[in-house]
Amino acid sequence: VDLCRRIRDSKQFQYLSISIIILNGAALGALTFRPVASEYRPALESLDHAFLAFFVFELVVGIVSYAPRSWRFFTNAWNVFDFVIVVAAFVPGIRENVTVLRLLRLARIARLLRNIPSLRIILLAAKKAIPQSAGLFALMGVIMYLWAMVGWMAFGGENPGQFGSVGQSLLTLLQLVALDSIGAVIREAMSHSLWALPYTLVFVVLGSFLLLNILIGVVLASMEE
Amino acid sequence: VDLCRRIRDSKQFQYLSISIIILNGAALGALTFRPVASEYRPALESLDHAFLAFFVFELVVGIVSYAPRSWRFFTNAWNVFDFVIVVAAFVPGIRENVTVLRLLRLARIARLLRNIPSLRIILLAAKKAIPQSAGLFALMGVIMYLWAMVGWMAFGGENPGQFGSVGQSLLTLLQLVALDSIGAVIREAMSHSLWALPYTLVFVVLGSFLLLNILIGVVLASMEE
Amino acid sequence: VDLCRRIRDSKQFQYLSISIIILNGAALGALTFRPVASEYRPALESLDHAFLAFFVFELVVGIVSYAPRSWRFFTNAWNVFDFVIVVAAFVPGIRENVTVLRLLRLARIARLLRNIPSLRIILLAAKKAIPQSAGLFALMGVIMYLWAMVGWMAFGGENPGQFGSVGQSLLTLLQLVALDSIGAVIREAMSHSLWALPYTLVFVVLGSFLLLNILIGVVLASMEE
Amino acid sequence: VDLCRRIRDSKQFQYLSISIIILNGAALGALTFRPVASEYRPALESLDHAFLAFFVFELVVGIVSYAPRSWRFFTNAWNVFDFVIVVAAFVPGIRENVTVLRLLRLARIARLLRNIPSLRIILLAAKKAIPQSAGLFALMGVIMYLWAMVGWMAFGGENPGQFGSVGQSLLTLLQLVALDSIGAVIREAMSHSLWALPYTLVFVVLGSFLLLNILIGVVLASMEE
Ligand code: NA
Ligand code: NA
Repeated sequence: VDLCRRIRDSKQFQYLSISIIILNGAALGALTFRPVASEYRPALESLDHAFLAFFVFELVVGIVSYAPRSWRFFTNAWNVFDFVIVVAAFVPGIRENVTVLRLLRLARIARLLRNIPSLRIILLAAKKAIPQSAGLFALMGVIMYLWAMVGWMAFGGENPGQFGSVGQSLLTLLQLVALDSIGAVIREAMSHSLWALPYTLVFVVLGSFLLLNILIGVVLASMEE
Repeated sequence: VDLCRRIRDSKQFQYLSISIIILNGAALGALTFRPVASEYRPALESLDHAFLAFFVFELVVGIVSYAPRSWRFFTNAWNVFDFVIVVAAFVPGIRENVTVLRLLRLARIARLLRNIPSLRIILLAAKKAIPQSAGLFALMGVIMYLWAMVGWMAFGGENPGQFGSVGQSLLTLLQLVALDSIGAVIREAMSHSLWALPYTLVFVVLGSFLLLNILIGVVLASMEE
Repeated sequence: VDLCRRIRDSKQFQYLSISIIILNGAALGALTFRPVASEYRPALESLDHAFLAFFVFELVVGIVSYAPRSWRFFTNAWNVFDFVIVVAAFVPGIRENVTVLRLLRLARIARLLRNIPSLRIILLAAKKAIPQSAGLFALMGVIMYLWAMVGWMAFGGENPGQFGSVGQSLLTLLQLVALDSIGAVIREAMSHSLWALPYTLVFVVLGSFLLLNILIGVVLASMEE
Repeated sequence: VDLCRRIRDSKQFQYLSISIIILNGAALGALTFRPVASEYRPALESLDHAFLAFFVFELVVGIVSYAPRSWRFFTNAWNVFDFVIVVAAFVPGIRENVTVLRLLRLARIARLLRNIPSLRIILLAAKKAIPQSAGLFALMGVIMYLWAMVGWMAFGGENPGQFGSVGQSLLTLLQLVALDSIGAVIREAMSHSLWALPYTLVFVVLGSFLLLNILIGVVLASMEE
């Protein structure tokens, strides 16, 4: 027990754990490249098994280190998460499901997030900024939806590629508001109707300005912390 | 009357009202997708009638709740707006005009804006920021117009696609200032004349810098509130 | 003389003057659209003569209003500018040169800038911000130039479209730094050499970050006024 | 010795040195344009030799000016850098290697950085900002990597152009986060699977917002100095 505690708390073990998660992520990533996968799959798969073995060892160390009150290990949400994603790989029924296994592997890489100190600060800042800015985003959303409906009504028939449904219209407006390919979008829209010029320009100028306002406002609000 | 007042002021009725407006918007949006429209049009149209019926009920509740001085209902601009866009749907002459009916439906969705608390704050901030920044935008506009005229004079003959009129020139400058496809725009312009390089680069560097200056200035000014 | 002074100082005359300059700009712009030009050229040209006549009248009013010490009119730089661009249109030799005449017309529209109150503030802010930021821009320029040379050395031979000369390389880097079409640029560059991935990514991430830093720094510095 | 010191410290000599480095850079850049290179190569090469001679002279002046304790010249890191990149050009073995020679020439242009006063400020600000923001960038990186893996799992088979490997997925996500060609990217992704819409939209909205947050946070933190 004492040894386990010392292992668990040693800087080296924590660095080793982080390194293994990163290596595991790299191995999973390498498998997505077809030439690599076709040549080294067995090696990378067995590497993945070795990493899984390490994670089991880590879990055991963690649980034992809390002995004799090992259940305390599970009072930490991250520990429960670790336990579930490691143990689930051995549960029959799950073990055979390729997609679930892949997601479990990904979840093991997501454990890295636990080691990023800024995560908590960001989540706290977000928790404060979101209610303040929800109204602004709702406003933006309603305006975009209404304007998209207007676009569909005005240009949907002749220009289905850009305004064929409210979905297409919204995508086109998203491009305008993000200043993405606005030259091409406006020229294409004008080739169908000259009224598209005021329709799109208004959104480029006012929409992107409103969006900038909202974004900077939210960022500054979340920064005050 | 008392019942009406209680209905009007109850949180549940307000949430129901917002939900119905959102559902109404979704139904109108669904009708813009051709496959959906061809299959479910009757259902969605009768849904729209049901929503309209609810809005009439809401109006009646609102007016009755002000009894015996019901005219007070109309002292609120939003209430007048609600009344007009709901009642107009029953006026003969309007009822037959498809475009007007569609706009009325949209206007009913626009009532959502009323429920966004930040709207008033934004409008107030805009009211303050606009006079301060109007001069800056006018400056930007005059500079772009003059530079567009120079571009038309210099390149309009050989390169009508980008500088064929002051309108085309302005669109090209808008792309440069918004950093949209600047690689493609500059390479295309240079394929016609090497003088296009300084012409466009100056605008990319100084124009986008000036614009950034203006936008941040306006945002910060409107933020001070 | 007194009448001239009263005309010169009256709000109405100033608004009339601004309106005429704007109309003049609109007329010049309209002439750049080929269909408009071919049909209405005579009308628009004579309109331009009428505007010129007004500008002459404005000049005369201005000069007379300073009588009996009319030379004082020329102590104001804007007045000298107005005088030159109006009188030059009548000087033989200039009168026959189409390009110069067109530039004079543009210059007359540029007089609008005089009426924008923020212009002076912006120029003052720029005067302060430029020396502070010149070093930062020089730094950015030197880094881009060096990196462009590296790109030409590494990829110029196989990929002349993006890195065929230091000019092409600089344009490609400008795209990366402005986040313009980075997906297309990186994929194209990688189709020639895999080393293009670190080469471009470093510039996208560090370059655009450095640029953002510089721009915000300069804007904030110029804003403190 | 005294003469050397006076030369070394005179403003004129420093400006001359900067001018020669800039000219040298311009000459190297000119050589990258094929038509220029084929016609003027001998002239530009001998110009480069002349510049090299000047740099040797500069070194000698610098070293002599420290006499009789010339070794002190080498206590300054920049001086060592200058010495190495100038002297290396004469070392046999290096002299014959075209690539190394070219890099040495570039390094000589990089000496310009030494003359930019803001460089030190920027490096200091970066030194402070990087540890603060490293966590944020790591967070962004881990999220992008995980999301890219999800994209590869979901769309990799049918849409190899955008999600064929974790590398392709990351590039696609980089485009979304930088708001580059998002219209084209989303429409292309949706042509393979409708699930691509929520997958990409979430990243456009949350990803670019998180990135903006990080960038502004880092910039403001590095600005406080
Ligand atoms: Na773009
Ligand atoms: Na962009």
